[in-house]
This record gives sequence, structure tokens and C-alpha cells, in this order.
Amino acid sequence: MSPELQTFISSCQVRVEKHMTRMIPADDRNPVHLHQAMRYSALAGGKRIRPILTYATAALFDRPAEIVDTPAAVLELIHAYSLIHDDLPAMDDDDLRRGQPTCHVKFDEATAILAGDALQALAFGALAANIDGITPANRLGMIELLARSSGSLGMAGGQALDLEATGKELQLGELENIHIHKTGALIRTSVMFGALCADKIKKEEHKRLDHFAKCIGLAFQIVDDILDVVSDTSTLGKTQGKDALQLKTTYPDLLGLQGARDRVDELIEESIASLKIFDSKADMLREIAVYIASRSH
Amino acid sequence: MSPELQTFISSCQVRVEKHMTRMIPADDRNPVHLHQAMRYSALAGGKRIRPILTYATAALFDRPAEIVDTPAAVLELIHAYSLIHDDLPAMDDDDLRRGQPTCHVKFDEATAILAGDALQALAFGALAANIDGITPANRLGMIELLARSSGSLGMAGGQALDLEATGKELQLGELENIHIHKTGALIRTSVMFGALCADKIKKEEHKRLDHFAKCIGLAFQIVDDILDVVSDTSTLGKTQGKDALQLKTTYPDLLGLQGARDRVDELIEESIASLKIFDSKADMLREIAVYIASRSH
Repeated sequence: MSPELQTFISSCQVRVEKHMTRMIPADDRNPVHLHQAMRYSALAGGKRIRPILTYATAALFDRPAEIVDTPAAVLELIHAYSLIHDDLPAMDDDDLRRGQPTCHVKFDEATAILAGDALQALAFGALAANIDGITPANRLGMIELLARSSGSLGMAGGQALDLEATGKELQLGELENIHIHKTGALIRTSVMFGALCADKIKKEEHKRLDHFAKCIGLAFQIVDDILDVVSDTSTLGKTQGKDALQLKTTYPDLLGLQGARDRVDELIEESIASLKIFDSKADMLREIAVYIASRSH
Repeated sequence: MSPELQTFISSCQVRVEKHMTRMIPADDRNPVHLHQAMRYSALAGGKRIRPILTYATAALFDRPAEIVDTPAAVLELIHAYSLIHDDLPAMDDDDLRRGQPTCHVKFDEATAILAGDALQALAFGALAANIDGITPANRLGMIELLARSSGSLGMAGGQALDLEATGKELQLGELENIHIHKTGALIRTSVMFGALCADKIKKEEHKRLDHFAKCIGLAFQIVDDILDVVSDTSTLGKTQGKDALQLKTTYPDLLGLQGARDRVDELIEESIASLKIFDSKADMLREIAVYIASRSH
């Protein structure tokens, strides 16, 4: 990773954490437990891949980071809510997330359900409030896009497909369909949020960015599957080997470990190729694509 | 109930049901189970009090019902999501809702959690899409208001307070605080959505409508508590006597049955008094207030 990318990622992580800290009500505010749970799960660190993509895409259109803070934080609030709900006993039943007890283990199930619900509401509300530098039309566009990509035809739908598929042998197309919804949709939205921070972008730019995002979204998930096989629990910060334990089909199952790695490389190459209409300002996005492929947790 | 109110209520119920039927993806669309669960819970009838208030308030400002359909349906989507999650085993653990098995009983817990999540996203997204006759600024205002009144400082927060209070003896002020958040906030929003269907309303009108809504929201909840004591399961369509069983403090506990009924009457009187700046166009709202006090389920 270049020193520039390292600095950029750290600065995005700091910005988004700071902004989320301000957005979620303080944990001495009633209902205290609920706000504690929201803060516990949303402010627990994490890679912040989605915000990083939003900042980097907005930078491509010369939009300053101040304008991007709210949309970037909103994506992470939605991501946090989805992790809390996915970890519930009735869903993936996971005890560990980012090296810490999951929300329902630390608090209780009811609080975890409500914390997720409230984070979702907070996310949509933040996009509706005034954001200096983003037009009302683009804020409405963000809300519409976020609703679609996180709802039953996006992330929540992908999780439903994933649960239905558990214990079944899947074909590659079926597996891809799950992940395009479950993780891909919100990653695409992260890039599109960056574009919506600009007032107007060309149709061709929009199309290329969307294809870029689609490729890295899928690559991100394949890497996740690979890491679940080859990494260990302390590096991952979540339970290793969970996919096999839960009888979930993974990319390494269908393609082999090397085949899965090759598929990641192909997707990253394709993602970078789709940025060729952009000049050196897109280098950060290009580097992020490579970083996604090579991450270790 | 006057024949006019009866006709008005039926027409609102039909409109909102029809509109929600169109909004929620068809149940042969993937993920099939998730869409079935969303439709099962959201299209299961119900009093549709919130939409009725929105249509009636918009009518006060001469706004045609076509303009109101989306905001009215959105409120009911949010209400439906909150009922699905409230009924979950980790929350109120209820098997019966509107005379039918609750969502997690009919489907499963994971599907119920995701159906609630996806209904919430659908609701916010629908307000962001174009609605003929409502300005973008007012749609953003609705989203902001809905996020606040359904999130950790509104409905979800009220449910958290309610769960924390279970098994404890509450003072009247504490009980009121729970219900102002848990049910009151969304009922106030229902009236305010009607006002936001108009382009601009006077500050004084806004203030009076908000006070009206606050009074009927609280009255609605006290009636709920009374019905839990005096009604039966088949009339209620949900398990009767649940509050006592779950060791929840209710208004009849604190005020006695007659005291609770008196408090409802006071609140309805106060709600109607706060409408006195409006002419006969507000008669429908006045009648709805009386209907809320006298409902049997």
C-alpha cells in the first residue's frame, strides 16, 4: 500500500468515526441502554471500506471531504445495523465481531434488534437534514438509492437469500446473486454516493463508476470467503471457519482456493479497466481496488 | 360514528391498502419468502389510524387524497415493521396479531427480522421518490420527521423504555413518557404528514395540530391499556391480558379503570379544543378524536 493510500484511509477512518460519534445520541441520553448499544456497535472501528469509497469517488470530482462526511457516515450506520441484525441468534448467531462480543451478547437480543432499527432510521434522517454542498435533489437521490440497495431487493434481500441457501449446494451463478445483493449493493451505493456529492456527472462516468463498484463489491466478498478459510479468528476479529460450520457455499468451495484468488484478480483488473476514462485523479480508487484484493482481514 | 366518518374511514382504509399492495414487491419476486412475509404483515388489515389522520389533516388544507396516498402508506409500513419486531420472542413474544399468527410464527424469526428491516427501508425510499403535489423540501421534511419519530428518540426508543420498565412499578409520568415515545411520536407524525402535504401552513396552525395529535396519541394508548383489561382476545385480534401477564404497568393500574376512562375523556376534550382556530373543515378530525376514545379494538 502506498503511503498516500495509507494516509488517505486513516484520514477517512478518523473523519467517519468522528462524524458518527456526533450523529448518534450520547450514551447518557435516554434510553441509555439503546444509545450505548448503538454506539458500541457503530463506533467499534472496522475497515470503513464503504466510506473510504465514497470519499475517494467524491475526490475524483474535486468535492471536499467536509461535504462527504454525512453520506459516508450514513453508509456505515446502515452497515453497522446490518451486522447487528445478521449476528442475531435467529440469523447467523455470531458471538464475535471486530474482536468484541456482538451487540446481543454484550447487551441483549431485544436491545440489539432495536439498536439496528434505530441506526437505520438515523441513517435516512441524516440524509434528509440539510447538508452544505449537496443539493436537495441529490439528497433525495441518495435516500432512494440507499433504500433500494439496503431493502428487500438489496442487502436485506441478499441476507434472506443467504439464509434460504444455507445447507444447500449452490451453483456459481446463485452464489454470485446472493453476494451481489448482500454486500455488492451497498458497496455500489458507496461509490454512487461519492458521485452524488458532485452536482452533475456525465452518464458515461456514472456507468463506468457503477461497473467499477460492481466488480470490487464482488471481489470484496470473494476475499471474505477466502479469509474465512485461510485466516484465524484473532486476525479476522470474527469467528473463523464459520461458513463451513454453517454449511454455507463459498467461492473456494466452487472454484478452489487458487480459482477463487484468480477470480479476485480478474475482477480487480476489470474494475481498474473500467476507470480508464478518468485521469490520475482516479488513482486513489485504483489503489483501493488493489487494497481490497490484498487485505488480510 | 356518523355515516360521513364511516365512509371516510373505509375509503382511507381501501386507498392505503391498495397503495401498499403496489408499493411492496410482488410475492413471486425473489426473495419470495421475504416478500411474502412483508405482504403478510403489512397487508393484514388493521385500523389504519395513522393514515386516516394523515388523509383527514390533508383534507383540512384541501389537499386531494391522491397526493396523500404515499405518505399515508409510508406511515403504515413503519407501523407494520414495528409490530413485526415488537412481536418477536426477544421482545413482547406475541403469537397473535390482528387475529392471525404473528410474522415470526407464520414464517420464522430471521424472516420476520428482515421483513421489518426491509419495510423500514421501503418506507423511507417511497418518500424520496417523486410524489406529484408535494415539494422536494416537504418530502425531505417528512423523511427527517419520520426518522426522528421512529428512531431512538421516538418509537424505537419508546419500545426500549417499555422493555426496561417491564416488571418495575412506574409512576404516571414515567408511563406517559414511554407512551409519548412508543406510540405518540408516530401518531403526531401522521398528523404532521397531512400538514406537509400542503405547501405551507401557518405556524399557529402547526402548533395547534401538533397539540391535537399529542392529545389523541396519548388517549389512543390509554384506550389500548383499557381494552387489554376489559376486552377479549377475539375482539382485540391480539392476546388479551398480555400487559398484566408481562408485568407491565398500565393506566388502569395507576388510575383505576374509571380514572383511565376519565383521562381519555379529558384528553379528547383538550384535543378538540386545540382545533378551535379551524372551521368546519376540521370536523372530520374532531370526529376521529371521539372515535379513538370509543373504539372497541
